Amino acid sequence: MNLDDLPIRDDLRGKTPYGAPQIDVPVRLNTNENPYPPSPELVADLAAEVGARAGELNRYPDRDALALRAELAAYLGHGLTTERVWAANGSNEVLQQILQAFGGHGRSALGFEPSYSMHPIITSGTSTEWINASREEDFSLDPGKATAAIEEHRPDIVFLTSPNNPTGTALPLETIEAVVAAAPGMVVVDEAYFEFARAGTPSALTLLPAHPRLIVTRTMSKAFAMAGTRLGYLAAHPAVVQALLLVRLPYHLSTITQTAARVALRHREELLGTVGELRRERDATVAWLRSKGLEVADSDANFVLFGRFPDRRAVWESMLERGVLIREVGPPEWLRVSIGTGEEMAAFRAALEGVL
Amino acid sequence: MNLDDLPIRDDLRGKTPYGAPQIDVPVRLNTNENPYPPSPELVADLAAEVGARAGELNRYPDRDALALRAELAAYLGHGLTTERVWAANGSNEVLQQILQAFGGHGRSALGFEPSYSMHPIITSGTSTEWINASREEDFSLDPGKATAAIEEHRPDIVFLTSPNNPTGTALPLETIEAVVAAAPGMVVVDEAYFEFARAGTPSALTLLPAHPRLIVTRTMSKAFAMAGTRLGYLAAHPAVVQALLLVRLPYHLSTITQTAARVALRHREELLGTVGELRRERDATVAWLRSKGLEVADSDANFVLFGRFPDRRAVWESMLERGVLIREVGPPEWLRVSIGTGEEMAAFRAALEGVL
Repeated sequence: MNLDDLPIRDDLRGKTPYGAPQIDVPVRLNTNENPYPPSPELVADLAAEVGARAGELNRYPDRDALALRAELAAYLGHGLTTERVWAANGSNEVLQQILQAFGGHGRSALGFEPSYSMHPIITSGTSTEWINASREEDFSLDPGKATAAIEEHRPDIVFLTSPNNPTGTALPLETIEAVVAAAPGMVVVDEAYFEFARAGTPSALTLLPAHPRLIVTRTMSKAFAMAGTRLGYLAAHPAVVQALLLVRLPYHLSTITQTAARVALRHREELLGTVGELRRERDATVAWLRSKGLEVADSDANFVLFGRFPDRRAVWESMLERGVLIREVGPPEWLRVSIGTGEEMAAFRAALEGVL
Repeated sequence: MNLDDLPIRDDLRGKTPYGAPQIDVPVRLNTNENPYPPSPELVADLAAEVGARAGELNRYPDRDALALRAELAAYLGHGLTTERVWAANGSNEVLQQILQAFGGHGRSALGFEPSYSMHPIITSGTSTEWINASREEDFSLDPGKATAAIEEHRPDIVFLTSPNNPTGTALPLETIEAVVAAAPGMVVVDEAYFEFARAGTPSALTLLPAHPRLIVTRTMSKAFAMAGTRLGYLAAHPAVVQALLLVRLPYHLSTITQTAARVALRHREELLGTVGELRRERDATVAWLRSKGLEVADSDANFVLFGRFPDRRAVWESMLERGVLIREVGPPEWLRVSIGTGEEMAAFRAALEGVL
């Protein structure tokens, strides 16, 4: 017997599991991880805190993660409080809960591709129809066309990604406002990479007070350098959080995850201290790629999309042969490189020079 | 604005979040937790292992949790191997993934109520239709009626719970076999409480080699005394695991959760060492309740269902006033008490004497 013999959902037939190859090479620049590991002090504090809580692991966790949510709210600022913040195992689970509460069969979600590829996957995973309203040739979003697409399709949920993944550029606040004004249902602004945005880029958090159907999602996987902890969160109107309580699996967030995330927040000065260096390295990478005559999308993130390569698979493979793992993702003819340490980016440049 | 003003899914309207009250009282016997906390040795080992892995938390976890799955397979025995075992954040997430892969709009899942109340909740959370095929008056399952219900409704998924929650009794293997033989689709045997079953109760794991559409789920929350770690798992045909890979959120299981679960498995002698004591306490509780003239369902679990009380809410409240939190759940006129320590059960008995 094999997978085809099983009565899986019809729309899953022929699909392959989502995920970048996990290949063990010297330079991994493919999943937008933060290359800086936590310090020995943070590691020691984390181990001590987990040890301090482990004596109660026979008990279920705080189902509402109240202490963590209060601390996330304090970190975000903007006058946010516990009842306006929600957390789950990675922003993927946050997004899935949003789809479960506001989507489902007979409903639709609209996004502007190329964008984060999990948005359509999680959407169809909850039996919600996915509508792709494309971006411009240069990956920007035209507010007039965006609102026209929303008025045409009347989606229950609109996804915006700012900074966008895999293209890298943040949205102007006016574009987000125009979309929120036009949307008949919920609007999700996925700000997974927001901390890396260029100076002066405003967060959609500033729009929350005026827009009760707006949801802003964040993650500790990128700027916070905690991808292994799996902690995503959102800010929204308290009623939105109440809606998510109706679909969340009870005790979805373990005692240890809540503890680890709180330790990371306490050490945020160290963790977010890497953002400046990564931005500098990113800007240098953009400049270098352009100096080589390549096309590069403006980046507000910890990755850079560059092209064009008529045979991008060949370039990706040649880079891998040179020990540098980048990502074959997004629009055809483009490749994405995550920003690593100075040393890793030197290896990336050397490898790409060799390939070109 | 409040929850009613939001465009939530129609079938969520008027619902309240699932979950037992988390009330801070001296004796908590309401969520079937294991009352024995991990030893100082286990706590120290856990903190050390988390510390040893925390230096790589900037990286995503092993997406396929291969080491953990191998060790879970070794624990389960029955010739199981990594590719036949899957794990997620609690067996609730395991069940949700099963529903996402094999259920969905236009499909149905059938269970025999009273049973675990999350089965219908997770079913409808995935737009799958829920069909209730009731148990007998004494909470047993008549194989003839069970297979007749399956033949009538032709469900895509059948849920069996053995030992059943909240009634407590395990199913004879012949009943499970009859159901598996009749079911046109997948059969899930939820064995969350299996380790507590009375001597000689065979696991549905013994049926796996002959039945590729059978799934057996387990958890580390009960016998393993790790409710705060949130680790559920299943054993099934490798093709079933491949199907779940199509719907799992990538990196759903954090590095820390994988690490903590592996530490717990290494300490299984200690953790499962509490099972014998809990079984003895359970059998004594059943005998004592019967000696008081109460009706009690046979229990293979770490809880006991007893009744009948025309006003069970009044009994539940009077117990709470006496500092003992039990659970108002399952069939009307019955109450459920989790098995605690000897001291906690003495407090339970004293409180119930006072109430009766």
